[in-house]
Amino acid sequence: MKKIVLAYSGGLDTTFCALHLSKELGYEVHAVLVNTGGFSEEELTDIEERAKGLGVASFKTLHVMDTYYNEVIKYLVFGNVLKNQTYPLSVSAERILQAKSLAEYAKSIGAKAVAHGSTGAGNDQVRFDMIFQTIVPDIEIVTPIRDLKLSRAEEIEYLKKHGVSMNFEKAAYSINKGIWGTSVGGKETLTSSDYLPEEAWPTQATETEPLELILSFEQGELKGVDGKKYDDSVEAIQALQAMAAPYGIGRDIHVGDTIIGIKGRVGFEAAAPLIIIKGHQLLEKHTLTKWQLFWKNQLAEFYGNHLHEGHYLDPVMRNMEEFMASTQTYVTGEVRVLLQPFRFTLLGITSNHDLMSNKFGSYGEMNKGYTAEDVKGFTRILGNQTSIFHKVNSDND
Amino acid sequence: MKKIVLAYSGGLDTTFCALHLSKELGYEVHAVLVNTGGFSEEELTDIEERAKGLGVASFKTLHVMDTYYNEVIKYLVFGNVLKNQTYPLSVSAERILQAKSLAEYAKSIGAKAVAHGSTGAGNDQVRFDMIFQTIVPDIEIVTPIRDLKLSRAEEIEYLKKHGVSMNFEKAAYSINKGIWGTSVGGKETLTSSDYLPEEAWPTQATETEPLELILSFEQGELKGVDGKKYDDSVEAIQALQAMAAPYGIGRDIHVGDTIIGIKGRVGFEAAAPLIIIKGHQLLEKHTLTKWQLFWKNQLAEFYGNHLHEGHYLDPVMRNMEEFMASTQTYVTGEVRVLLQPFRFTLLGITSNHDLMSNKFGSYGEMNKGYTAEDVKGFTRILGNQTSIFHKVNSDND
Amino acid sequence: MKKIVLAYSGGLDTTFCALHLSKELGYEVHAVLVNTGGFSEEELTDIEERAKGLGVASFKTLHVMDTYYNEVIKYLVFGNVLKNQTYPLSVSAERILQAKSLAEYAKSIGAKAVAHGSTGAGNDQVRFDMIFQTIVPDIEIVTPIRDLKLSRAEEIEYLKKHGVSMNFEKAAYSINKGIWGTSVGGKETLTSSDYLPEEAWPTQATETEPLELILSFEQGELKGVDGKKYDDSVEAIQALQAMAAPYGIGRDIHVGDTIIGIKGRVGFEAAAPLIIIKGHQLLEKHTLTKWQLFWKNQLAEFYGNHLHEGHYLDPVMRNMEEFMASTQTYVTGEVRVLLQPFRFTLLGITSNHDLMSNKFGSYGEMNKGYTAEDVKGFTRILGNQTSIFHKVNSDND
Amino acid sequence: MKKIVLAYSGGLDTTFCALHLSKELGYEVHAVLVNTGGFSEEELTDIEERAKGLGVASFKTLHVMDTYYNEVIKYLVFGNVLKNQTYPLSVSAERILQAKSLAEYAKSIGAKAVAHGSTGAGNDQVRFDMIFQTIVPDIEIVTPIRDLKLSRAEEIEYLKKHGVSMNFEKAAYSINKGIWGTSVGGKETLTSSDYLPEEAWPTQATETEPLELILSFEQGELKGVDGKKYDDSVEAIQALQAMAAPYGIGRDIHVGDTIIGIKGRVGFEAAAPLIIIKGHQLLEKHTLTKWQLFWKNQLAEFYGNHLHEGHYLDPVMRNMEEFMASTQTYVTGEVRVLLQPFRFTLLGITSNHDLMSNKFGSYGEMNKGYTAEDVKGFTRILGNQTSIFHKVNSDND
Repeated sequence: MKKIVLAYSGGLDTTFCALHLSKELGYEVHAVLVNTGGFSEEELTDIEERAKGLGVASFKTLHVMDTYYNEVIKYLVFGNVLKNQTYPLSVSAERILQAKSLAEYAKSIGAKAVAHGSTGAGNDQVRFDMIFQTIVPDIEIVTPIRDLKLSRAEEIEYLKKHGVSMNFEKAAYSINKGIWGTSVGGKETLTSSDYLPEEAWPTQATETEPLELILSFEQGELKGVDGKKYDDSVEAIQALQAMAAPYGIGRDIHVGDTIIGIKGRVGFEAAAPLIIIKGHQLLEKHTLTKWQLFWKNQLAEFYGNHLHEGHYLDPVMRNMEEFMASTQTYVTGEVRVLLQPFRFTLLGITSNHDLMSNKFGSYGEMNKGYTAEDVKGFTRILGNQTSIFHKVNSDND
Repeated sequence: MKKIVLAYSGGLDTTFCALHLSKELGYEVHAVLVNTGGFSEEELTDIEERAKGLGVASFKTLHVMDTYYNEVIKYLVFGNVLKNQTYPLSVSAERILQAKSLAEYAKSIGAKAVAHGSTGAGNDQVRFDMIFQTIVPDIEIVTPIRDLKLSRAEEIEYLKKHGVSMNFEKAAYSINKGIWGTSVGGKETLTSSDYLPEEAWPTQATETEPLELILSFEQGELKGVDGKKYDDSVEAIQALQAMAAPYGIGRDIHVGDTIIGIKGRVGFEAAAPLIIIKGHQLLEKHTLTKWQLFWKNQLAEFYGNHLHEGHYLDPVMRNMEEFMASTQTYVTGEVRVLLQPFRFTLLGITSNHDLMSNKFGSYGEMNKGYTAEDVKGFTRILGNQTSIFHKVNSDND
Repeated sequence: MKKIVLAYSGGLDTTFCALHLSKELGYEVHAVLVNTGGFSEEELTDIEERAKGLGVASFKTLHVMDTYYNEVIKYLVFGNVLKNQTYPLSVSAERILQAKSLAEYAKSIGAKAVAHGSTGAGNDQVRFDMIFQTIVPDIEIVTPIRDLKLSRAEEIEYLKKHGVSMNFEKAAYSINKGIWGTSVGGKETLTSSDYLPEEAWPTQATETEPLELILSFEQGELKGVDGKKYDDSVEAIQALQAMAAPYGIGRDIHVGDTIIGIKGRVGFEAAAPLIIIKGHQLLEKHTLTKWQLFWKNQLAEFYGNHLHEGHYLDPVMRNMEEFMASTQTYVTGEVRVLLQPFRFTLLGITSNHDLMSNKFGSYGEMNKGYTAEDVKGFTRILGNQTSIFHKVNSDND
Repeated sequence: MKKIVLAYSGGLDTTFCALHLSKELGYEVHAVLVNTGGFSEEELTDIEERAKGLGVASFKTLHVMDTYYNEVIKYLVFGNVLKNQTYPLSVSAERILQAKSLAEYAKSIGAKAVAHGSTGAGNDQVRFDMIFQTIVPDIEIVTPIRDLKLSRAEEIEYLKKHGVSMNFEKAAYSINKGIWGTSVGGKETLTSSDYLPEEAWPTQATETEPLELILSFEQGELKGVDGKKYDDSVEAIQALQAMAAPYGIGRDIHVGDTIIGIKGRVGFEAAAPLIIIKGHQLLEKHTLTKWQLFWKNQLAEFYGNHLHEGHYLDPVMRNMEEFMASTQTYVTGEVRVLLQPFRFTLLGITSNHDLMSNKFGSYGEMNKGYTAEDVKGFTRILGNQTSIFHKVNSDND
């Protein structure tokens, strides 16, 4: 029997796939859950049991949070990546790492095929296929849901026929949870005009007391939250998330271009990601030069889009990561943040690398580094070409 | 006597200039106030009276809000310009237009010189000088405060000696008000770490009742607020500002690179500018293509920086404006906004030009424009070069 | 019978299509030749006769050189577009305009389908399909060569069977000729290492006498060659081509990324396009500001790539054209060019809009616009941030 | 006596400086020649003797070719940097490294001041000052020629008065020679319209026999010429220069924006730099992905401009170097070049990393990686958003 690795999440689609791949297509199914931080211990146990109940040849949970952080999230922070100035790429980034982990696992067990439960309608199919065809080009990609175009009802009927019992009820809001944010889709996000209702948000806002926090960054990475140091940035992110989520911070709706050309909308809540990105960005404003800020933005916008569209393995991504990483040498310091219901305020920073250091002059006061005459000369020459342009062309108009 | 045009605001520095230019330097002083929307009728009358009390040869108020909107603000909206992802360029944009208006006025009355009250420490001197030397290259630029490096006390002493009486007390927070936002500086903004206290903000937050509004954009310009149509976008901005300001919306601290190379910090409140920019940007996400969004951002970041640094007259700015204006053809529609204390939420949009139109397929549902096989082919080819790259180079590693 | 418009060139593939569409698929075939400047009168007559001999319902030659110039070539000149710094997009640009003309013609005669003879291996199929599906989205696209995957021999057999007699010999080098250059493919271009032999080039170099020419540009458009004025830039291009081609100028091999992800190589000769672009670019160096030059290049590189890949109808292309057109206001002047066998030299320019005008100072001589002290102040401040960066960070290293 | 380090070249200006600094300003003068490859052994000995004849406290030649290559030239090759698509930055790049070497030397000997002989009219003063004020911010910068604004005649008179005898004749063409090219200025380059005459070029073209060469690149660096391997790229560059220069290859006139805003023109000959850059670029077209090529160009254009303007020490330059270096991993292979009088032709390349490898399909032939149906699906989806855009907006026009 040919081995197939199935990206398994325990939901309706991948449950259908597990059975279909084995019973109809005759594969030896190896179900793999890639955990990027969205599952509790309890959920993981539950998913494993259900998988085994489906008669899979093996079940494996790949815990990839550290890899996810080191290969993806870290650079999203360095680049302050918010797609369309809004969305921290919560789901897109996760899919990339899941696909990569699955492909490497499939290779390691000598699988002949790999399967995912994506439909033919969204971004995920493209991300999975793009990564698979590059890392395991000789392995077949099998996508039952996309190929069969089954309705939900048909899938359920098939599962019931085979004696599978699970919760077949469709949730009003579908969510996808990971360490870099939780997405929320529902009937409102299928329109352009409607906002998600309060009950749609996975984390209800319960905290009302303002809280002031210190975030510590070392070379661009979050290494401390509220006085506690973390060697492991994953833990720092989780600690911040635990504190900030109950404020209802980081909710928004992303409107974006799908890879397949249509526009789509998805809600998300991402308290820690947004606070980290904005705090990190503030620290950069104090520690990087003007052109470092400019070029990092120009590159990061493309980097985010290219990642979003599944081009993670294009070597230009590695080149951009080198650029971004090299800008972080002095992005070290503390950022003061105030949490309040539904919002946060960046109060200020302290850093040994702060270029606003008043040793070198303060804005609005006369500076130590130059004289009034210097500025006059500066301006005269800085504007020289524009002056000449207007002189030349007014003479000739 | 040589005519000089003085940029006059009625503050300590320009009051000193008015007297100094006339009594010490022997100029015929023509005081000009350029009103970009920051003064009430009462303030304008008061400033005029004080100017006349100083014995100036003439006093003139230039009302330039329409020009300011049409030549500057409009493009800041088209480009969704927020310097360093934060600051709507409230002061920078205003100075450009003030300098331009002054230069043109000086030319029109045949002045031989033009004066401004900037110190040698900030951005404004550069902006004024850059514009003056291009528009009126043969006119002398006179800057008593920068040249004499007088202390506040020395200026006051000089004015008292000449019998000038005005309020000589220094406000704890210096503000600069205009239609595109109000800046706030104080002792906290001279540090990197401290936030402005509540009392520093010019507009106190008094409104607590949530309010849902509709903003109407026509080809990128705000033409309706809450059901009321405005031919004049300036009025629309002012109407929105009147509604939103009492919520304490749009407060933040900008950290930026001054033109002269040091970093500086300034607080600002800009309720209407932020709501307009963010609402406009949302509408663009629905109506522009992916590459329009991408390139508009790349250009607008430079546009904002270049404007901020006084390069408004570089012809590249006109070229960028043409680009931006031509993207706005279909940026027409309604944006729903919810105002709440200290924050606003963009609820959604409606537009005849919405590319998310479900006539062409909805995200997350199977689409009308293509099949599953199409997507497979698409992905296979889209990722072709990256696959080849990895194949070629793994064979040879 | 359903009307189909066939892009017809008189070659083997489109001759096969004409017959196949009619005899096998039952279409009423309307053969259309889109002339972008690559055919002599004699060739056009000959092609028409052969088409009629195939029994097509109608034959039509669309003369689109002016449209081609105004909608495409003009912007390639404004942008100095050379793909990968080498190739003037001779074929890519032509295909776009051909597809557009065909689509509009198909619409005008109420055709239900449109056909092209592209194989499934190259760029042209993508360009044709992309344009057709946008301009005539409801019309079927028929591509017999791509669909049937016939060999050359099979096509010939089919044609012979139906009594078609034409020259069935395969040329050693396939060429594609148009006003913006001629491409040349042969066995050498299928490798990475070999150059085209002398006999492969369509225009043999016969001229040996150096010739000095004046090119006159008006707002970026070529309007004069060697003292003769042309209202019509198409004629100016043709006149220059007639003079320069016999020198063997403008030959090279383009190596590029195809739309479908593989790399390809194609020879080309494009004397006039290269002289025009380089001459135009020199004039711009004298008449545009530094940032105009910079941004025009940044945009034009994307513009060229996007056009090459068939994205001509993406509205971002129109936005970029607006940018580029608005930079050309003062790109008016004369360029002196020296033609010699296999090379040309740009000798210099004269222009009323030359910013190098020595009225404002000459490079290498002390300038009229500023003093030595000005430059010292300028430099002190220009380098201020970098100095601060190094001071701050050496203190802390 | 205060130690001063003088950038000394043995020309009129720096000879004047040596004397003036010592006799008029009372400095202990340490003359330093920074050799970036433009001097023969004989010239170096001669310059040293003349310096000693002026009574300097010490004379030192800093041989910095390796540093020059490793810190500057290497990245100019990686980025294929040609300012304004023409000029390899022969002089600009050299000045940067000279200034850096001088500053470090001044620091090492405890000098209190550093001097250069630049006038107040050109780019070099800015480059020297910018580097000095960052590396040795506490050391005084002394520039006698700029400050005194002396004429050539006055300098000569002063030197004669002090008994200095040297060749006081002004050459018709001033040249600056280094390993990365030789600049040539003369009366023609002060105009916009005239070309340099044959006799102005330092290297006369004597070779007429065509020569085919192989250039070998390893990770982007030239390591072999014509079958001979070089560990040291500096030697490889010199070997190529020796072969190519006698063909008169690499001559042109650069027109550019000076740092101080005016436009300037300078001739140059740079056979090896141009062949290396163009050969390297061709190899990259075969080995890098489309987006690597795109982004490397976008960055390199800024990198070249920023270097040219003296901003070498802005940390953004290090970030860009990291980007560029990381793109070179697979830029390894051979480039075939044909040298002929006044021109060279790139014949082709061979590389193990060639993405045009026909293992993965050849352009123009049906490919192994995909089917005709794949391409149809690809195109349908690739053009989806543009199609939707036109549908939505034609419905509403």
